[in-house]
Amino acid sequence: MDKVSPAQAAATLEEFWSQRTIGEANGNLFKVAKGIGSTNWHAHDDQDETFLILRGHLTIQLRSGNIELDQGDLFVIPRGVEHCPKADDEVHFMLVGPQVTSNAAGGKPEWSYSAQTPADNVD
Amino acid sequence: MDKVSPAQAAATLEEFWSQRTIGEANGNLFKVAKGIGSTNWHAHDDQDETFLILRGHLTIQLRSGNIELDQGDLFVIPRGVEHCPKADDEVHFMLVGPQVTSNAAGGKPEWSYSAQTPADNVD
Repeated sequence: MDKVSPAQAAATLEEFWSQRTIGEANGNLFKVAKGIGSTNWHAHDDQDETFLILRGHLTIQLRSGNIELDQGDLFVIPRGVEHCPKADDEVHFMLVGPQVTSNAAGGKPEWSYSAQTPADNVD
Repeated sequence: MDKVSPAQAAATLEEFWSQRTIGEANGNLFKVAKGIGSTNWHAHDDQDETFLILRGHLTIQLRSGNIELDQGDLFVIPRGVEHCPKADDEVHFMLVGPQVTSNAAGGKPEWSYSAQTPADNVD
């Protein structure tokens, strides 16, 4: 692969809470996404989900309390753990995991879908 | 796990070309390291190695040519591909892969060992 800047890739996204794959290694995908508002509460029973904040602030709501993430912070949500990311302002982040999870089961809110979204962002 | 800042974790490292594990997900480790000078030429036959630059500039020498990485750049070295990272000035980076690779087989130069290094950094 060529080198890639996750921050620059995230800045080109048109749809919130949709993941674009920018790399792959050892069975894991490197994906970028942007968020605002929140997803629905959900869990991934088949994979851990790693967040790395590229720009802005993201709150990861867990049933056990909130995790506040700023630019540069890394956080792993273990498989099976219910979570609901939310952001008052636009936030950009990288995700690492074996599959794209920006689908309905992955908590993607219905309003995030848009006609501008490249087909390869829709899972 | 708690949230962690890879950049802050890398800034506390005492030894060059030694990896400290800061997280784990889906069988992959998130590791930080710092470099200056270069490692020895080497390849990992069992794993891809992903670099994310946290601070500074890193040249990944490949037999096919050099890859120049700046802060924020992501680059995957596929398994089996010979490489030799080098840096004129101190560089900090995050690595993602299933094992710690900062051992002799991973190209670690002999001079990088130091008595100040925590035991859990030596593979």
